[in-house]
Amino acid sequence: MNLKSDCLSCLLNQSLRVAKNLNFDEKTAKNMMQVASESIANYGEVSPPVAAADLYPKLASFSDGNDVYKTLKELSTVEALKLLPSVESKVHSVLDAIKAAVAGNVIDFATPNHFDLNTEFEKVFETSFAIDHSEEFLKKLEEVKSFMIIGDNVGEHVFDKLLLEAITERYPNISLYYAVRGRPIINDVTLLEANELGIDEVATVVDSGVPTPGLDYDYASEDFMKLYRSMDLVIAKGMGNYECLEAVKDKRIFHLFKVKCDVVAHDVGEALGSLIFMQNKLA
Amino acid sequence: MNLKSDCLSCLLNQSLRVAKNLNFDEKTAKNMMQVASESIANYGEVSPPVAAADLYPKLASFSDGNDVYKTLKELSTVEALKLLPSVESKVHSVLDAIKAAVAGNVIDFATPNHFDLNTEFEKVFETSFAIDHSEEFLKKLEEVKSFMIIGDNVGEHVFDKLLLEAITERYPNISLYYAVRGRPIINDVTLLEANELGIDEVATVVDSGVPTPGLDYDYASEDFMKLYRSMDLVIAKGMGNYECLEAVKDKRIFHLFKVKCDVVAHDVGEALGSLIFMQNKLA
Repeated sequence: MNLKSDCLSCLLNQSLRVAKNLNFDEKTAKNMMQVASESIANYGEVSPPVAAADLYPKLASFSDGNDVYKTLKELSTVEALKLLPSVESKVHSVLDAIKAAVAGNVIDFATPNHFDLNTEFEKVFETSFAIDHSEEFLKKLEEVKSFMIIGDNVGEHVFDKLLLEAITERYPNISLYYAVRGRPIINDVTLLEANELGIDEVATVVDSGVPTPGLDYDYASEDFMKLYRSMDLVIAKGMGNYECLEAVKDKRIFHLFKVKCDVVAHDVGEALGSLIFMQNKLA
Repeated sequence: MNLKSDCLSCLLNQSLRVAKNLNFDEKTAKNMMQVASESIANYGEVSPPVAAADLYPKLASFSDGNDVYKTLKELSTVEALKLLPSVESKVHSVLDAIKAAVAGNVIDFATPNHFDLNTEFEKVFETSFAIDHSEEFLKKLEEVKSFMIIGDNVGEHVFDKLLLEAITERYPNISLYYAVRGRPIINDVTLLEANELGIDEVATVVDSGVPTPGLDYDYASEDFMKLYRSMDLVIAKGMGNYECLEAVKDKRIFHLFKVKCDVVAHDVGEALGSLIFMQNKLA
């Protein structure tokens, strides 16, 4: 999925949020916004995550190359962990755990919509998926030997771990994997946050090598791709992974996300705010 | 008042709204957004209206140089005229007419906030100005021989006319003037819309010559500036005029507007949505 006109202003709005998050003085903020505008003027036929992977290091350079969302990522994990016991008490099946994982997908600093995790969990257990291929997924889960979640945002990863636990409890013979980004990009989960949370206790955490906030094969490491291609079943979390993978024609992949922008809403043909659990198409 | 970092993303968001308003195909829209981004990357220490005056003709060039808000301006006038009789029935003083005129200022396509004129009028007659120099203004009105409104948006001009009528009814000896932009810029009022509405029946309509959505003296015609300098009292409507005039140190000018963005909110020290009727400062 390539950048749309909407994505260009969205990227500049993200840059402004980064400047505010880092409490830059007005001169630095404006300078950063102009560097961002110049980059945005030149993005061709690439996916939004690939553009973001170019943009964010430029924003980070104004902060001595630091992870611009470090503090907010830490805060997201703290908030998610606070809600975990109450969410866990509602999870009685793999499908419930999938619902919890998609509710976690609301944690996102790259989209214009504010999030309230508590409200999100209250709603999500009563809401149907707008596109619902859970039956196909649960059927496959009965047969497979390996399964991977491609992670998305920090905070959300707390509920991805819950899903991995729910699967291993019911299907102890499935080998579980959790793929993370190769470096900090927006608020996406990297090795650091995955291991800090102890996801490595329930799955093999693997660095995809990608610097983009979505699994773009061209950027993934060879080792990762070899492992990834050997998987029997995959859940790709979040819009970034959807934007990179929607066209790969691979029925092993199920996209799990909340629709958080108009561009993706239009692409999937569902309303803003919809929950999607959709198998990647062959045709 | 110079461009802030926030203004840069605001300008790109405005460009996106223009693309949507003109129903461009995705390729044209993206191309236009990239031209806009490139311009935005280069705006130095200029006011937001001066930047907008550079940007909008570039956007208009994708529409064969047409007035990109022509249809929406026509619609604004139609909607404003529908509400006029009910607003008129509430106007019993010049101050009431000033309130009606500031309620009209909510009509704006350059700001992120949607507007509902009906609701706005219901609220405005019960709301106090956050900064209120109406006493000084009404006192001056007793003494002056000439008065000018510097217009802002189309639709809003319907209620500016109401204010001019209220003044001429009570002070028939004051010469009234209504200043408009020198060419179409965003949804600002030009000679065309002012004369179509018949503002020329109640005031002398004058073309300021400025191509910016705010009265920037550097862009005004000599004839206009000569007339303008001879005025005894001026109301500058809207944020664009405020952004250009806030620092000119001229106590003849009263700024009348609704605060519609964070940058101006911060500048005047009042909340988003506040109503402002503020005399220009000497110090």
